[in-house]
Amino acid sequence: MTANPLSEPESEPISKERLRLWLKLLKASSMVEDEVRRRLRQNCNWTLPRFDVMSALSRAPDGLKMSEISKMLRVSNGNITGIVDKLAEEGLALRVAVPGDRRANRVRLTPKGQALFDDHATAHEAWIDEILGGLNADDIDGMILRLDHLTAALEEQE
Amino acid sequence: MTANPLSEPESEPISKERLRLWLKLLKASSMVEDEVRRRLRQNCNWTLPRFDVMSALSRAPDGLKMSEISKMLRVSNGNITGIVDKLAEEGLALRVAVPGDRRANRVRLTPKGQALFDDHATAHEAWIDEILGGLNADDIDGMILRLDHLTAALEEQE
Repeated sequence: MTANPLSEPESEPISKERLRLWLKLLKASSMVEDEVRRRLRQNCNWTLPRFDVMSALSRAPDGLKMSEISKMLRVSNGNITGIVDKLAEEGLALRVAVPGDRRANRVRLTPKGQALFDDHATAHEAWIDEILGGLNADDIDGMILRLDHLTAALEEQE
Repeated sequence: MTANPLSEPESEPISKERLRLWLKLLKASSMVEDEVRRRLRQNCNWTLPRFDVMSALSRAPDGLKMSEISKMLRVSNGNITGIVDKLAEEGLALRVAVPGDRRANRVRLTPKGQALFDDHATAHEAWIDEILGGLNADDIDGMILRLDHLTAALEEQE
């Protein structure tokens, strides 16, 4: 069969389209992440991992174990330790003993840490609103639906 | 104005929805990436950065400078050096001089490296096809359209 140069290009197999989508998903998320990282550094002098650790702590009024933070953020315990040490030095977080378990510690934000995080989180939400500003409510709903579908399938496999 | 308990919940401001989308985008891409990383390690004994470097080289028959690889993959030159050293040791890549520039080197895959990458890339495409298998052609087109929109806006700002 010879190709007709006037016809539409033959559609690719769907595996190629899925690959194309994956590469675009990866590119978009790393571009947004780089932009957030840049603004955090510039406006707050914060690193992204610090923001992520404080974000996890801000949703846990009773505090989190190091291993819990590490699991939530998918990064190593060693990296978290360095960040928590710095937060404690600056009076933004503290380590509290777990009653009944002498070896375990929980990390909790101080009121000062919570207030500072709230400020930065408000700024962060505004940046995301601006960066994703080209997407309207329908775009967002459609994408969330498909992303939920994708992560649900991966969570089932785990 | 008092809330009517029987009415639909009030819709969130769109900034909250954009933030929700961003967190889901980040979650999905890191879950897919973790799964690819796991399979590369298990089936090919390769790291993801090695796969990414070979992927960039496989699309550049004339080779790439270290700085070009580093820019394409958004990782530091130092990390790339370690990977390229290993590839060269294993006979999968080689450094070639740039005519007219005694200080510059280009890295190129060897035929052995290209053949091995092609094998692994075929496997990689099949994994992505499986992992993203819940998304049909319409889902894919819709998402690609919106992701392109998002990255175009970010590229304009750069």
